[in-house]
Amino acid sequence: MNFCSDNATGASPEVIESLVQANQGHTMPYGADLLTQRVEQKIAEIFETDVTVFLVATGTAANSLALSAMTPPWGGIFCHPKSHIEVDECGAPEFFTGGAKLIHLNDLDGKIDVNGMQDAEHFMTGKSVHQVQPAAISITQATEAGTVYPLDAVREIAERSRAMDMGVHMDGARFANALVSLGCTPAEATWKSGVDILSFGGSKNGCLAAEAIVVFNNGLADTLEFRRKRAGHLFSKMRFISAQFDAYLTDDLWLKNAGHANVMAQTLAHGLKDISGASFQFPVEANEIFVELPEPVIQGLTAAGFQFYRWDEPTTGRIIRLVTAFNTDPDHVSAFIDCARKHAEPG
Amino acid sequence: MNFCSDNATGASPEVIESLVQANQGHTMPYGADLLTQRVEQKIAEIFETDVTVFLVATGTAANSLALSAMTPPWGGIFCHPKSHIEVDECGAPEFFTGGAKLIHLNDLDGKIDVNGMQDAEHFMTGKSVHQVQPAAISITQATEAGTVYPLDAVREIAERSRAMDMGVHMDGARFANALVSLGCTPAEATWKSGVDILSFGGSKNGCLAAEAIVVFNNGLADTLEFRRKRAGHLFSKMRFISAQFDAYLTDDLWLKNAGHANVMAQTLAHGLKDISGASFQFPVEANEIFVELPEPVIQGLTAAGFQFYRWDEPTTGRIIRLVTAFNTDPDHVSAFIDCARKHAEPG
Amino acid sequence: MNFCSDNATGASPEVIESLVQANQGHTMPYGADLLTQRVEQKIAEIFETDVTVFLVATGTAANSLALSAMTPPWGGIFCHPKSHIEVDECGAPEFFTGGAKLIHLNDLDGKIDVNGMQDAEHFMTGKSVHQVQPAAISITQATEAGTVYPLDAVREIAERSRAMDMGVHMDGARFANALVSLGCTPAEATWKSGVDILSFGGSKNGCLAAEAIVVFNNGLADTLEFRRKRAGHLFSKMRFISAQFDAYLTDDLWLKNAGHANVMAQTLAHGLKDISGASFQFPVEANEIFVELPEPVIQGLTAAGFQFYRWDEPTTGRIIRLVTAFNTDPDHVSAFIDCARKHAEPG
Amino acid sequence: MNFCSDNATGASPEVIESLVQANQGHTMPYGADLLTQRVEQKIAEIFETDVTVFLVATGTAANSLALSAMTPPWGGIFCHPKSHIEVDECGAPEFFTGGAKLIHLNDLDGKIDVNGMQDAEHFMTGKSVHQVQPAAISITQATEAGTVYPLDAVREIAERSRAMDMGVHMDGARFANALVSLGCTPAEATWKSGVDILSFGGSKNGCLAAEAIVVFNNGLADTLEFRRKRAGHLFSKMRFISAQFDAYLTDDLWLKNAGHANVMAQTLAHGLKDISGASFQFPVEANEIFVELPEPVIQGLTAAGFQFYRWDEPTTGRIIRLVTAFNTDPDHVSAFIDCARKHAEPG
Repeated sequence: MNFCSDNATGASPEVIESLVQANQGHTMPYGADLLTQRVEQKIAEIFETDVTVFLVATGTAANSLALSAMTPPWGGIFCHPKSHIEVDECGAPEFFTGGAKLIHLNDLDGKIDVNGMQDAEHFMTGKSVHQVQPAAISITQATEAGTVYPLDAVREIAERSRAMDMGVHMDGARFANALVSLGCTPAEATWKSGVDILSFGGSKNGCLAAEAIVVFNNGLADTLEFRRKRAGHLFSKMRFISAQFDAYLTDDLWLKNAGHANVMAQTLAHGLKDISGASFQFPVEANEIFVELPEPVIQGLTAAGFQFYRWDEPTTGRIIRLVTAFNTDPDHVSAFIDCARKHAEPG
Repeated sequence: MNFCSDNATGASPEVIESLVQANQGHTMPYGADLLTQRVEQKIAEIFETDVTVFLVATGTAANSLALSAMTPPWGGIFCHPKSHIEVDECGAPEFFTGGAKLIHLNDLDGKIDVNGMQDAEHFMTGKSVHQVQPAAISITQATEAGTVYPLDAVREIAERSRAMDMGVHMDGARFANALVSLGCTPAEATWKSGVDILSFGGSKNGCLAAEAIVVFNNGLADTLEFRRKRAGHLFSKMRFISAQFDAYLTDDLWLKNAGHANVMAQTLAHGLKDISGASFQFPVEANEIFVELPEPVIQGLTAAGFQFYRWDEPTTGRIIRLVTAFNTDPDHVSAFIDCARKHAEPG
Repeated sequence: MNFCSDNATGASPEVIESLVQANQGHTMPYGADLLTQRVEQKIAEIFETDVTVFLVATGTAANSLALSAMTPPWGGIFCHPKSHIEVDECGAPEFFTGGAKLIHLNDLDGKIDVNGMQDAEHFMTGKSVHQVQPAAISITQATEAGTVYPLDAVREIAERSRAMDMGVHMDGARFANALVSLGCTPAEATWKSGVDILSFGGSKNGCLAAEAIVVFNNGLADTLEFRRKRAGHLFSKMRFISAQFDAYLTDDLWLKNAGHANVMAQTLAHGLKDISGASFQFPVEANEIFVELPEPVIQGLTAAGFQFYRWDEPTTGRIIRLVTAFNTDPDHVSAFIDCARKHAEPG
Repeated sequence: MNFCSDNATGASPEVIESLVQANQGHTMPYGADLLTQRVEQKIAEIFETDVTVFLVATGTAANSLALSAMTPPWGGIFCHPKSHIEVDECGAPEFFTGGAKLIHLNDLDGKIDVNGMQDAEHFMTGKSVHQVQPAAISITQATEAGTVYPLDAVREIAERSRAMDMGVHMDGARFANALVSLGCTPAEATWKSGVDILSFGGSKNGCLAAEAIVVFNNGLADTLEFRRKRAGHLFSKMRFISAQFDAYLTDDLWLKNAGHANVMAQTLAHGLKDISGASFQFPVEANEIFVELPEPVIQGLTAAGFQFYRWDEPTTGRIIRLVTAFNTDPDHVSAFIDCARKHAEPG
C-alpha cells in the first residue's frame, strides 16, 4: 500500500520477460545490435518522424544530456522553479553543460506560466556579454505537480522560445501519463508542438531503468554520442536497455500502464474530494495528487500502513503527495479512501 | 563463436533469475532498500574490511567517479598509455574530475612498469604551481593486455604513490579474472596491497550492467554520493543493480565465472602456441589473448565464422585479440584451435 | 561629465607613478618579487591579521576564484538576485566552481534580507543527495544598489551561514566606499564580522586593473594558487599588479579616493532631492545613485552632454543610475544639479 | 645580469608612456573605447586580413581561450610534449575546454616533427565514440626550445591537420622573435600558412601584460567574447591593455625589440660555442639558448652574479637556459662570455 512514488514499484512482467529473452547468444556491444535498432525504429514510428535516439538508464542522464546538446557553458536554461532539473538532480544540468545557469519562470499550477515568457523576452532584450545567453527552455510533461500542459501552451512556449533562438526540451519522465491525459498523438505532444528533444521516460512506468533521449531536431544530435559515452552512460550490453523499451513499446504497454496509473489517481481524487478539510493543491491530471488533509486523517492513514510523503514539511506538513503507478492495486485505492473517510470529521 | 569481447555475451542465468525475483513488491528507491544493504554487507565480508560501496552500471562511470574522488581539477593521474581510462572512455576521467590530466607511465607487458615510478617521482621533484599536481595513480587488474600485476608490483606502486600523497585506484573491470589468476584473497589483492578505491566489475563477467565502486580509504568516500547523483548514475530502482550483484556474489558465482573464462583462455593459448608463425604479444594471465597469426590462418578462421578483432589495424593487422567469457563454450574453443591448425603451415 | 560607471575613468596619478617606478630592473616573475611581498604585508597590516593574498586583475576573477575555494561543483551559493556574480559575470562562478548553483535570497534595498536566511535554513533542513549542497553565501559591500550592510547585518548573515557550514564571501569591488560609509576598521568590516574571503577591489577606485583575493580563513587558501594559475590569472610580470596596490594602499589613497566618491554622491543626492518628481530607489550610502526623474529632466541632462545609464529600460526607463568616482569633478556635480533643476517643473 | 627569462624584465619605455597617456579622461569600459578599436585595426593591417581580436593579459589565457574555441570537451589537442600548454599552464587548456585531452606528437628540436602527423592520422583512422575526437593542433612559434618552424613545416602541419578537420593554433608568446628570425611577413607566418588562431604575445617582448588572441578563421570567433568574459579576462578598463599594444605595434617596436633579443642570443651563442665542453642542445634561432657547460663554468658564472636556470635538474644539471630580452644589455652579454671563457679549460 505504497503511494510514495512511481519508482518504489518494480517493472512490468512483459519488460522482465523481454530482458530474459534478450539474454540469448552474442550480440555486438554498445548499441550495435539488432534489438537496439528495432527500438529506434519503433520510436520513429510512434512519433511519426525521423528521430535520433540515445538510450540511457536514468532520467537525470536523459535530461542533462538533452540540455547539454542545446546549451553552451555560458547558456541560460529557463525552467520552472520546482522542476526536476532544478531541484532534484543535484546540479546535473550544470555538470553536463559545463556550468550553465537555470533561470526560473513563473509558476501556474506547477507549469511554467506562458505569460512568464515575457520575463524571458525582457531578459533577452538587455542581452550582453556580461550575462549568460538564453539557450534553452525545459518544460516537464506531466509536471512535478501532476498537472499537464495543454497543447496550445506547449506550442506558445515553444514558439516564443524559438523566436529567441532557444531550444525546447521536454522532460517526459511521465510523458506517457501526460499523453494519455491529453488524448493526442505522441507527435502532436512533441515535435508538432515545437519540442526539439524529449526525455522519454520508461523507468517510472513499467521499466527497470530505461529512458530514451529522442531528438526531433536532428541538428542537435551530433554531439550526443560523445556526451553520452563521456558521461559513462553508453552501456556495453546495450541490449538490456533496449529490451526494456522493446517490451514497453509493444502492444501499447506504455500507454496501458500510464492509463491505469491515471485512472487510479482519478479514483483517489474522486474518493477524497468530499472529505471535510481536504484541499487539492493542483488539478489532478496525471498520476500524482497533492492534497491537504486534516492531521487525524493523515495519522490514521499512516497507522493503517499506507505509505506516502508529507510534502511541505517532512514530519508535520499536512499536504501529502500520493503517486499511483502502472500496477497500483485498485483495492489499495479503495482501502485508502475508506480509511481516510473513517478518520475524517463528518462533512 | 564470438571471441570479440566479454561484453558481447549476456548475463549468467543466476543473475537474470535474481532480477526476476527482485521485481516483487515495493521498496524504497535510490538504494534505501534491503537488497542494496545486503549487497553492501556482502562486499564488506568478501573484502574483510569496512568499505563504502557505490553501485553504478558502467565501468566508465565507476572509474571516473573513483578518480574524481581523488583528483582535483588541476590534478594529474598517472596511468598506463593503453589503459581504458586513457583510450576507451572518450575523456570521461577529464569530465568527472573537471579537467585533470592523464600522464603516461612506461609499459611492461601491458602493465605500468614499476621502474617507471621514478619518472613520476622526478615529476614531483620539480613540482610547481605551473604544472598539474600528481593526485592519483590508476592500475588495471587484469590489464587491457590480459596480463596480471603480481601482488608485490601492486604493493610497490602503491607505496611509492602514497609516498607522493597520491591515491591508488584499481580498475577492476576484470578484477575477478585477475583474482583467480593470482590465487589470493580479495583483501590481499586490494587494500592490503595499498589500493584506495576499486572499480569492481560485474558487467563483463556475468552481470548485465553492474559495477561497484568499493572505497577502502573512507576519507575518499564523502563526495561520492553527490558526484554519483549529479552524474546521473544514482538509480531510482536501485534494487535492479543490487540484484545483479547479489547473485554475482552468491556461492562464488563471480569467481566460478572468471575461472571458466581464464581456463578457456589458457586452453586457447595452449592450442595455438605450436602454430607456425604464432607469436603471443603478452603472457596469457587472464581471459584475453593477443596473438599474431599468419594471414591465411586469420582468414580461415574468419571464413569459418569465428568472430574477433584484428587489433593493430582494423582490416590488415595480423595481431588478433581473443576474449573468453564466463560462458565461452569449450567446443567453440576446440573448434577454433582445429580451424587455426588446419589453415596453418606445417610447423 | 561621465556618470556611467566608476570604470569609465582612469587611474590615480599615484598608481600610474608607481607603475612607472616598478618598471626598473629585473625581478623574479609570478609574484616572487619584493614588491608583491610588500603588498601582501601591507594588506595583512591593514586587516590586522594573518591573511593569504592572491592578486588578480579583474573583479570577476576575484569573485569566482574566491567562491570556487568554498564551493564544490555540487554546491549552492546563496546570493542577492541582482548581485554581480549572478547577473554580470556571464556565469563565471559556475565556470570556476565546475557548475555550482546560485540561489537567490530576498532583497532588502539591494542587500540580502537577513530574514531571508530562514529560506536558506529551510533549504538545508530538507538536505538530500538530490539537491545541491549549500556551501557559500556571497554578500556585496557596497551593494550594486549603492547601499551598505550595517555591521550587525553582516555578522548575523555570517553567523547563520557558519551554523550551516557555509563559507562567507564578500564581494568588495567597492569595499573602500563601504568602509568609508561605515566608518569602521577594515578588520571590523570583514573577518571580525565573519567574512572568510574578501574580493578587495582596486580597479573601480583608482587602480587600472588590480583586485586582491584576501583569505582570512586560511583553511580556504590551499587550492587558490592552482586555481589562479589554471585560470590564466597568475601574471608573469606580477610586479605591475602589485605596484598598483602598493600605491593604492599608501597614505590611505584608497580611503581618500572612496571618500571623495562618496561625498560626490551625497552632494548629487542632496542637490536632486528637491526636484519635483525625483524619487530615490535606494538610500544613497556609497557612490551610486538610482533615482527616478521626470523625462524632460533626463532629456535635458542628456542634451547637455551628461552621460549616464537609464537603468530599467535602455531607452525609455526613467530610473537613471549615477556613479561617482575617486576623481569626479565637483564642478560636474554642480553643473549636473543645476541642469536638472533647470529642466524640472517648479516643485 | 639576469638571463632567467624574458618575463623577469620590465616593459619598454614606449609602452609605459602609452599607459600614462591612456590615463586621460573618460572612456567607455570593456573595450568599447577608441583606443581598443585602433589596436584592432592595427592588428588587421599588420596581418593584411580581416581578423577578430580579443585582448587579454596573460599567455595562458590567450592559449586556453583560443584552444577552447576549437575544441569540444571531448576533443583531443595534438601538441609537443614540452609545449607550454602541456607543461606550464597547470591544466588551463583542460579547464577552458571543459576537459579536452592533450596528445603528444614526436619531438624534433623542440618542434613537432612533421612526420609525427602520421601518428595523428593513424589515431583518426580508428576514430570511434570511445575515444576523444581530434579537434586541434597547437604549435609554438618560436618554440620553448628557442627554435623556429620553417614556413613549409607550418604549412604541412596545417594542411594535414585541416585534412582531419582540426583547427590550427599557434602559441606565439614569442611570435615576434620567430618572425624576425624567419624574415617573412606576419601574414605569411600565420594565416597564409594555415594558422586559424594566433596567441600574439606582447608580455615577454616589451609589454607589461598584454596578449592578443588573433582569429583569422572567423567561424571560430563567435564564442570567444563569452568565453573571455566568463573566465574573468574581459577588462573593465580595457584601454590599459590596448594602450600597451598600441605602443607595441607603433613604429615596429615589437619587431625592433625582438630583433635585439635575437641578436643578443646569437652573440651569446657565438661567444660560447668555442668553450671546451660546451654543447648546444638546439639550434639557436630566437632568443633562448640551451647549452651544456662544464660545471666550473656554471659555478663561475653564478659566483659572478649571473642569473639563469639550470634546466634539467634544479641544482646539479649542467644544461643551462639563457634567455635574452628586448632590453638585454650588450655589456652583460660580453661580460657573460668573458666570464664563461675565464672559467673554461683551454680548448
